[in-house]
Amino acid sequence: MSSETPTDAETACFEAGIKFGSLYHQFAGTPVSPESAPSLATAMAESIENQPHCREVTVDVRTDELEAALAESTADYTELTGRFLEVEIVVDYEGCTVVTRMEMEDGYPLMRLESVRE
Amino acid sequence: MSSETPTDAETACFEAGIKFGSLYHQFAGTPVSPESAPSLATAMAESIENQPHCREVTVDVRTDELEAALAESTADYTELTGRFLEVEIVVDYEGCTVVTRMEMEDGYPLMRLESVRE
Amino acid sequence: MSSETPTDAETACFEAGIKFGSLYHQFAGTPVSPESAPSLATAMAESIENQPHCREVTVDVRTDELEAALAESTADYTELTGRFLEVEIVVDYEGCTVVTRMEMEDGYPLMRLESVRE
Amino acid sequence: MSSETPTDAETACFEAGIKFGSLYHQFAGTPVSPESAPSLATAMAESIENQPHCREVTVDVRTDELEAALAESTADYTELTGRFLEVEIVVDYEGCTVVTRMEMEDGYPLMRLESVRE
Repeated sequence: MSSETPTDAETACFEAGIKFGSLYHQFAGTPVSPESAPSLATAMAESIENQPHCREVTVDVRTDELEAALAESTADYTELTGRFLEVEIVVDYEGCTVVTRMEMEDGYPLMRLESVRE
Repeated sequence: MSSETPTDAETACFEAGIKFGSLYHQFAGTPVSPESAPSLATAMAESIENQPHCREVTVDVRTDELEAALAESTADYTELTGRFLEVEIVVDYEGCTVVTRMEMEDGYPLMRLESVRE
Repeated sequence: MSSETPTDAETACFEAGIKFGSLYHQFAGTPVSPESAPSLATAMAESIENQPHCREVTVDVRTDELEAALAESTADYTELTGRFLEVEIVVDYEGCTVVTRMEMEDGYPLMRLESVRE
Repeated sequence: MSSETPTDAETACFEAGIKFGSLYHQFAGTPVSPESAPSLATAMAESIENQPHCREVTVDVRTDELEAALAESTADYTELTGRFLEVEIVVDYEGCTVVTRMEMEDGYPLMRLESVRE
């Protein structure tokens, strides 16, 4: 068993994960409609960009999915969940740039590391 | 002991309380800075306005308090909490209009019913 | 149009609404499985019971619904949402007792006033 | 500029970050008192342990800090924030074990990678 001090790239990946978990669990459950989706997407991006080492957050609330979900129901809004989100987060840490992305895959929102550049 | 079916005014007050609890506990803890405060305030108002019987939500993130809090620290953002918020919510239910407000009082954010009009 | 100071019963209903909105939007989105449901239900009840005028909160996480949802998926946990919850909240305010309940109705979680007793 | 596929250790660190961000932003703002702190700590740990690759979550709600905060106020509960938390999360991913920790440092809750073992 070897104990290892984290590399800068590993710390950058840890920081990127924090941003994703924060974004998702802060905003999941928010009431959202096609009309209010743009302001929510902007607030999500700008609030998470406050976090340390966060260069850029891009949030797209998928209004096509939102409209499809509402068409099946009698309500005119629903709760924000991964099905309605596409998110990209770029983190810079000590010269490492990490790009991460959340997309639907087989019906589940999957958060993954896209690239790690030193 | 008498059991009583709620009046429309009582239901309107219940609905108004739901909106306040929702707004506060959905968004408390969000990273916020003076720069990102306006987009957060807009998203808070527009998302809660989706809820049933909600006529209008007005959210003011108090940037003066935010700047005072940040001046005492080494960080350039903080977490949203009641100290930084002034909120008014108007609910209409079956002809009753309820106005509710959250403001600081003795260092605590206090949610209260302002008026109930039938 | 008459402007009216809220009655104690109306304030009690407002307070009950706050508890419901708080409970729902604080905990919606929490990862939950049949195994972790009991500890989550206990924490939800005990945390909301801290709020002013809150006499009792009863939370039942419906493990039958949870198991049905997981049977359709490849995951072994999901996110907490209204579909998995039955909640009763009792508020006392200045001698008024308000009983409120959340249950599914036509596929939607509905929060409603059950009784207002003075 | 080189583009690089993430290593297993980097993915493990990303996964650990997700758990931390999730835990913090799901539960920050929850009403908490010395009496309700233990059930909240248990629910936080058990809910986050549901997430993929999460081996163990240890949450300590610091009742000493909680009591100190309440002694300064007229309330008997407060909102959960980093000041009241000590958390350790262990993630296993493809044979890598990542230990992460959140503790107060200079008045701020700091999340950091403790060790990465392959």
